[in-house]
Parts: sequence; structure tokens; C-alpha cells
Amino acid sequence: MTIRIGILGYGNLGRGIECAVKHNPDMELKAVFTRREPASLKILTEGVPVYSVSQIENFKDEIDVLVLCGGSATDLPRQTPEYVKWFHVVDSFDTHAKIPEHFAAVDKAAREHNKVAIISCGWDPGMFSLNRLYANCILPEGRDYTFWGKGVSQGHSDAIRRIDGVKDGKQYTIPVQEALEAVRRGENPELTTRQKHKRECFVVAEEGADLARIENEIKTMPNYFDEYDTTVHFITEEEMKRDHSGIPHGGFVIRTGSTGWEDENHHVIEYSLKLDSNPQFTSSVIAAFARAAYRFSQEGQSGCKTVFDVPPAYLSPKSAEELRSHLL
Amino acid sequence: MTIRIGILGYGNLGRGIECAVKHNPDMELKAVFTRREPASLKILTEGVPVYSVSQIENFKDEIDVLVLCGGSATDLPRQTPEYVKWFHVVDSFDTHAKIPEHFAAVDKAAREHNKVAIISCGWDPGMFSLNRLYANCILPEGRDYTFWGKGVSQGHSDAIRRIDGVKDGKQYTIPVQEALEAVRRGENPELTTRQKHKRECFVVAEEGADLARIENEIKTMPNYFDEYDTTVHFITEEEMKRDHSGIPHGGFVIRTGSTGWEDENHHVIEYSLKLDSNPQFTSSVIAAFARAAYRFSQEGQSGCKTVFDVPPAYLSPKSAEELRSHLL
Repeated sequence: MTIRIGILGYGNLGRGIECAVKHNPDMELKAVFTRREPASLKILTEGVPVYSVSQIENFKDEIDVLVLCGGSATDLPRQTPEYVKWFHVVDSFDTHAKIPEHFAAVDKAAREHNKVAIISCGWDPGMFSLNRLYANCILPEGRDYTFWGKGVSQGHSDAIRRIDGVKDGKQYTIPVQEALEAVRRGENPELTTRQKHKRECFVVAEEGADLARIENEIKTMPNYFDEYDTTVHFITEEEMKRDHSGIPHGGFVIRTGSTGWEDENHHVIEYSLKLDSNPQFTSSVIAAFARAAYRFSQEGQSGCKTVFDVPPAYLSPKSAEELRSHLL
Repeated sequence: MTIRIGILGYGNLGRGIECAVKHNPDMELKAVFTRREPASLKILTEGVPVYSVSQIENFKDEIDVLVLCGGSATDLPRQTPEYVKWFHVVDSFDTHAKIPEHFAAVDKAAREHNKVAIISCGWDPGMFSLNRLYANCILPEGRDYTFWGKGVSQGHSDAIRRIDGVKDGKQYTIPVQEALEAVRRGENPELTTRQKHKRECFVVAEEGADLARIENEIKTMPNYFDEYDTTVHFITEEEMKRDHSGIPHGGFVIRTGSTGWEDENHHVIEYSLKLDSNPQFTSSVIAAFARAAYRFSQEGQSGCKTVFDVPPAYLSPKSAEELRSHLL
């Protein structure tokens, strides 16, 4: 059985889904939908059509799962409840604080139209959330730590680029190694924002710009940089292109906790990711959850779900017997 | 709602379950069942009775989930299908090669008696299996590595103790650091048994025993040691007691894989455990899955399941809303 996938939105994430479909033989890319002029868009997969999103309803019987590749700020809060009327959907909504609200809106629409939605797939929220949950259930007595990086923060890079005199900028979030080690040793440290992460910025300045002013504006920017130890490096456009064109990321979820009648035994559970490409890894997670959405739909289920609701076996193309024999 | 737990078998694992119940406020220990003389057994929880296993059927309406704490070699293949007639059960059956056979026997009995069983809970099989599955689904193109240790292998320690002239022995399995690092760097090494793990033995010899012979017998023992680089240390009884009375363990599950149209992006997913007490951590995992067994039973489900079939949210005492708000 082939799962027919549609993609809405062809940016880094959409292209990542396209690549993930290529890696999953039980999936087939049926169409890409875009808000841009369809003819302007050149996709990687030969023979797959690109349509205007205005035509999407016509494809409701030809697509099993529609993957929504818009942003969390304005696209997904509108798109996920809208398109779940016609399709089973998966999104990567990642504004943690607004998940309950998004869930409620999507759940209502999905139930009304007898469709399945899985929201907030990716690695955080997503795989990191799953690891927090498992570790919390195993060690009720304990403490959670999440470190991000080393990786590119799009939001912080954008903030740098908005500064007067900045031509280009890229920001890396980096976990503070000593903090990470203290956590791993089970010391249960109380860590301030500054003690957990540092920020490293690479900036291409416009000719004649006041570098000292730019550096100061970055380091003192409220919320983005002022609570962190930040270093700023001025580099050339060539260096930026050569050394900083990737979108790597990663991080660590650690729970330390105790067991025993008197809490005498200590344990460390750690999950970590080291990713060459943040959007491509996110897409690969989404593709696996698209399979789960399809499984749920085949069972006749409906409503909104999250990664917490998905039996892990539903993510795999392999049968339950195969999984028990080879992976358990 | 309190989940009423019964324990069958009061060794390290049974005691671990008892401690785990103490850490999970939604659980209550109802009774411990033993094949020994019940009066000879002193448990930690005040007011909880100990009964002979021969009386267990009488408690079928007073216990929600029975945790089977026997061994995988001879106890569980018989016990799990037997006791699932009267109780929802959880076990930690860990003979990987025989899981399909065990599953079939338990599934048949569980369905016949309308009960739920979750088998092979713990960390390997268990949490390591889950991490292998998730990582395989996310990165279909890739490679799995599992390293165990540093930790005590009961089987290898027993093998040492059977050697003539050995009074006591303890064996640690240790991952080879260079191999671990090569895997993490994404080099996809082909590793022989010897290249992955080494073995370190601590031996108390009987007075006058031939140490060179003992060391040689250990190092050349087929299956157990001959394929590994093994070091043997002779120590005193006092040193054994002082430095080697714990049962620590742990390990690493790593999958490296690629994404992208031309597999141009590389990723590393790593899960690791560092455990003061192997049986206590295993018990803590089992306790969480006992909660899932109870949830399944409340839904009216029956049959045998594994960790792959359990929606992660079922492991938690928290509501779906709470989990979405705080852990996603």
C-alpha cells in the first residue's frame, strides 16, 4: 500500500519532505501546492505537478496525507484547521506556549470532518518532547534539562540582520560545556539562562559601518542577546558563504533522577541529536508521523493527536512481527 | 484512581518494583507472591502481605496488574502465559531471539482470558528498542549501533565464579571508546566483537590457587571471553565488597544516517543510559508500562503488546492536556 503525500508550501521544510518521501518506499509524492505562481516553482521530483493552493480542494480524494510546511507564527494557526477539512494532515507547529490553543482548534475541525491531524512533529517539539515524556515516566523523582545546539537560530540571525549597517548575519546557539558536564555528572545544578547557552554571531558589515556600534547593539539586544555571553565575529561575504551556509542544529535532553527505597541510586538518561540540516531532519520526523496519520485514518480514527498519542510501531513501514523480531 | 500492583518473585527486580511503586503516587502495592516460604520473606513496605504463589488465583479481583519478576530462561516462558489467565501482566522477558515465540504464547492466553500483557519491558529490550525503532523510522537510510556498559554482566560474572579456585568474581562490560567516537563522528565503521566491547574481571581467588591458570581459563573461555580483550585483576574479598558490590550498567544506542536528495546531509541520533542500579532502573521502566497495561485494560483491550504498541502518553499519570502543556 502506497501512502499518497501532498506538500503545502515549498520552502526548506517542503523540500525536506520531498527528500524524505524519496527515502520512504511506501510513500509517493502526489503534488506540491504553493501560494506562489506554480510555474515559477521547480521541484526535485520528476513528473510531480505543482498547483496553486487555491485548487487544493480538488485533490481531496487523491492525497492521503497533506503535510503543512508553513510557519508557526501566522501560517499554521490558520492552515491546519482549514485543510484538515479535506485531508489528513501533519504539521510542525512549534510555538510551545500556544500548542493547547492550536490543538483545540485543529481537534474541533478534524472531528467535524472525520479526519486525523498530528500536530507539532519535528524534534522540539517532537523527538525531544517524547524523550522528556519517557524519561519523566521512568524517573518520577528527577530533573529535566534541555540544551540546544550547536546550531543556527533563524530568529536570532534575522534579528542581527535587522541592525543598521549589517549586510548578513548568522547566529549559533551553543550549549555551555561545563553546564552540560555538571548535569551529566548528576549534580542537578540550578542554571541561569547565561549558564546554559552562549551565542556566537558571524556578521558581514556594510562598507564603512561602525563595527563597535554593531557589536554593542547585538550584545545588548533585549531578549535575544542581553542575557547571554555573546561573541561577535566580523567576516567577509565570501567567508559567510563558504563557512556558514548550512543550517546545522542539535541538542541534548537529559533527565537525572533517583530510584530505591531511600532514593539511593542515581541514573542519567540522555538523548542527543547532531544534525547537518535542521529542516531536513525535521522533515524526516514529519514523514514518519505522516505514516502514523495514515494508519490512524485506516482504523477510522479522527481528531487531533500529538507525538505522545502515537504507538511507535505506527511510524514504521515494517509489520509488527518484523519489528518484534528485529528491533525489540 | 489507584492502580493495584502485585509482584511475583521478590529478588532484585521485585524489590525494584516495590521501590518504583513508592515513587508513583497513582500506584499501590497490594501483595507480594513468592515460591519461598512467605514467612521467611521480609519486604520493605509496611502492611503489605506476602503470600505463597499457590494462593495467587484468590487475588484475581484485588490486583489490577501483576508484575512478573522471574528470569527469562525458565520462569517467564511458563509464568507469563499462565498468570495472564487471571491478571493483566507485565514482564521483562529479555531473550531477544525468543521474543516472537514468547509473544505468541502470551498473546494466545491473554486473548482467551480477555487480559492485557506487555512483555519485554526494561531497557534492552525496552527503551533501547524504542530508540532503535524511532531512529530507524526517522532515518531509513542509516546504520544502528548498540554499545553496552560500563556495567556488570551477571552471566559473565557467574561464568567466572564457576572456575575452579575462584571464590568470587565480577565482570564489567566496557564499550571501546575509540569505536564509540568513530560511530559518533559518522564514520559508519564495521566493528568486530572485539572492537566494540572489552571485558574487565575482578576475581577473588581461593588461597593457594594458581592465578595464572585462572586468568588463562577466563581469557580463553569460548563465547564468554575468547572474542574480547579481557583484563583480569585479582583482589581481596574486602576489596570486592568495598568496590564492586553495586550493579551499575548503561549503554548507548546510536543511529547515523543521511537525508537530502543526494544523501548529502548526515545526522547522529544518540540515546544513552548511565545507571547506578540495573535492576532498579529496569523496574522503573516496568512500573511505567504497568500503568499502560492498566490503561489498555480500562479501554477493554486484550492480547499481548510490546513497548512498540504503547502510546507514550499511556505511561504517564498526567492527563493528555497536562502533557501537551508542559512536556510537548
